[in-house]
Amino acid sequence: MAELTEVPVSTSESRLRDMALRAREAAGVLRVAGTAAKDLALSRMADDLWAQRGAVLKANARDMEVARRGGLSVPLVNRLSLDEKKIAAMVEGLRALIGLPDPVGEVVSGWRRPNGLEIRRVRVPLGVVGMIYEARPNVTVDAAGICLKTGNAVILRGGKEALNSNIALVEILQGALAAAGLPAKAVQLVMDTGRESALAMMRLTGGIDVLIPRGGAGLIRTVVENATVPVIETGTGNCHVYVHRDADPDMALRILLNAKLSNPAVCNAAEKLLVDREVAAEFLPRSLAALAGAGVEVRGCPETVAIWPAAKPMTEEDWETEYLDLVIGVKVVEGLDEAVAHINRYGTRHSEAIVTRDYGAARRFLEEVDAAAVYVNASTRFTDGGEFGFGAEIGISTQKLHARGPMGLREMTTTKYVIEGTGQVRE
Amino acid sequence: MAELTEVPVSTSESRLRDMALRAREAAGVLRVAGTAAKDLALSRMADDLWAQRGAVLKANARDMEVARRGGLSVPLVNRLSLDEKKIAAMVEGLRALIGLPDPVGEVVSGWRRPNGLEIRRVRVPLGVVGMIYEARPNVTVDAAGICLKTGNAVILRGGKEALNSNIALVEILQGALAAAGLPAKAVQLVMDTGRESALAMMRLTGGIDVLIPRGGAGLIRTVVENATVPVIETGTGNCHVYVHRDADPDMALRILLNAKLSNPAVCNAAEKLLVDREVAAEFLPRSLAALAGAGVEVRGCPETVAIWPAAKPMTEEDWETEYLDLVIGVKVVEGLDEAVAHINRYGTRHSEAIVTRDYGAARRFLEEVDAAAVYVNASTRFTDGGEFGFGAEIGISTQKLHARGPMGLREMTTTKYVIEGTGQVRE
Repeated sequence: MAELTEVPVSTSESRLRDMALRAREAAGVLRVAGTAAKDLALSRMADDLWAQRGAVLKANARDMEVARRGGLSVPLVNRLSLDEKKIAAMVEGLRALIGLPDPVGEVVSGWRRPNGLEIRRVRVPLGVVGMIYEARPNVTVDAAGICLKTGNAVILRGGKEALNSNIALVEILQGALAAAGLPAKAVQLVMDTGRESALAMMRLTGGIDVLIPRGGAGLIRTVVENATVPVIETGTGNCHVYVHRDADPDMALRILLNAKLSNPAVCNAAEKLLVDREVAAEFLPRSLAALAGAGVEVRGCPETVAIWPAAKPMTEEDWETEYLDLVIGVKVVEGLDEAVAHINRYGTRHSEAIVTRDYGAARRFLEEVDAAAVYVNASTRFTDGGEFGFGAEIGISTQKLHARGPMGLREMTTTKYVIEGTGQVRE
Repeated sequence: MAELTEVPVSTSESRLRDMALRAREAAGVLRVAGTAAKDLALSRMADDLWAQRGAVLKANARDMEVARRGGLSVPLVNRLSLDEKKIAAMVEGLRALIGLPDPVGEVVSGWRRPNGLEIRRVRVPLGVVGMIYEARPNVTVDAAGICLKTGNAVILRGGKEALNSNIALVEILQGALAAAGLPAKAVQLVMDTGRESALAMMRLTGGIDVLIPRGGAGLIRTVVENATVPVIETGTGNCHVYVHRDADPDMALRILLNAKLSNPAVCNAAEKLLVDREVAAEFLPRSLAALAGAGVEVRGCPETVAIWPAAKPMTEEDWETEYLDLVIGVKVVEGLDEAVAHINRYGTRHSEAIVTRDYGAARRFLEEVDAAAVYVNASTRFTDGGEFGFGAEIGISTQKLHARGPMGLREMTTTKYVIEGTGQVRE
């Protein structure tokens, strides 16, 4: 949790409590706001963000200057930096939300009891959402838009490197909310980016209904270890591609290369390759040459090293590691049983794929592997709200409570039971 | 958390880690066990529990003796003590599960993407469930049965006063599992009832997929404050009955008496009465006389005291308190706005009722009150898995993530995405 290293501020908790109270009031208004009112505000947000992009870019330039002086890494600078194209993408994201169905008010189920009570389970907003994330200003706009569409107030705490950008963005978003007749405090930014404010946010029991951390494994772990408010864990993906003995080798190679290379820095990228012994001697030289040719460092079990001597030996720790980089770990397995056992032991329950033409092997893999998304004959890279057709995504949950896998608008809601009677009392 | 006061045992955590590993293995078997295999084990559990009730009653007698010597309160002794009738009820509970539909395998939704990927969201077990509860041996059997039916392994930690009873029960349940060909370790009991073992259980990240505390507000608070594993909060209910100016007074009285008196010790009992000023002078003397006549202590706001001088004055703390006793707090309100604001401020978001003949008032109450269950013209006492028709209930969630309100079998599952392709890769 590299960004939480500033001097503690003793008033963090009381300031956050105040923010949470204002968020609760705003949530009360949003809860009963109609879809049209929310969509109008989204439209206003998109217009204002585009109209005032100059102010955002100016604020971002200040962040970038501090970042460069501080010697931040290239990937961090890439995530932090904004330009007109990136702002246009944020604006597009807001506009896309307008066209999506509003999950609030959906009657999930309903029935009549023998005593005449009519029970309906109805989708309602969560209330106050907290987001803790790193130096990515686009998350500020994404999260604000998704929370507004789903009737939730949101308290945002971005990385300190993006503070000026976030202040500029939230000012615009709040102005748009007010102009559209909704409470500006529906979107609030935590200005204090010190460690203490993050911890206080994690422990704001009663103030925040759900906290969603988005970022690296360190941030997620810190939140899970310290939070007393309900948390949705997102993201860590130690994903496997398993090439079964009956795989179409060309398809297996295509899927492997896509899963590893199309974006190695994201959570749904493949980190490990498992290959059945029966086909290893044929498949590995061909596939590892292709990976190595694309700049991937290959690490392997002893059998892999025997077949492909350029591979470095794997350590036990390697099997658990999400590289997020041009590195792959390779293991030769006896067959399906060993592959499933290995995945269930070392995987992070994110996305797991088998490549096979064998019907029974496919069925067993789908059934026995414990993960948010299990694939037959497709790349793990499809685990994504957009690719699933959700239209918007707030993150990918790797926990089992509430939401698992890509979280769209529906996952940002809860339900309540509405019970209508004619004077019924319980015996 | 009165029961967590024994001497710390330093090996608690490593012992719990071992239990969790065995539970994880058992969960792997249960995850793919068919409904018939699980139902057979439930049937065997019911048979064995009845056949061996003598051993359970003997163990319970030892617990009762210790309890009596220790001078435990009457309600605690009532919950702890077993007899043939109570065991018959446990057996009935197990048998009832056999007849219920198995939620595992349900296809919640499914669609095809433009690229031909077939996506299905399928219901699967949670994995390893932890239960922390007080001295109620029936929870041991209920929880074991519900977890088995839903394919979950369970780690049970009951109150220390019930330890002998729980050991006897779990021995029988494990024997039945083994006899039915399922892993005995699917149901395990934490023998160490010290505080340290409870804390270790709350922090068993990766070992327990969800922890469900069942008990008083102190236990729930301790779990929420200390847990790093995902928790489902259950139970606290500061429930209101709001008598609107257009209520049928007879219906309002019937609902109020039922909500307060039919079982004052449970979470869905009414703790507060709100009455519109316009009808207070007529409704209060009649209803408060009825409540007082049934032994209820009446506390009230100044207006209530003016109308019913026998009422004690309410304190600010009273408005937040779940009495679980023959006590009621009464407030005269101006109308719907004040009633809703009061409930949203002081309620615990459990069960809230309005009594009215006014269509608009009913709709606004249902929409604006933020609670797991909102009622029009019915008693709050219906918030219950049995009364909702779920057939089984593991608790009543008062949080917003994952489950809200009575939790039946479906709430003891998660989902996974199953994606079948023909070699698709991401652009």
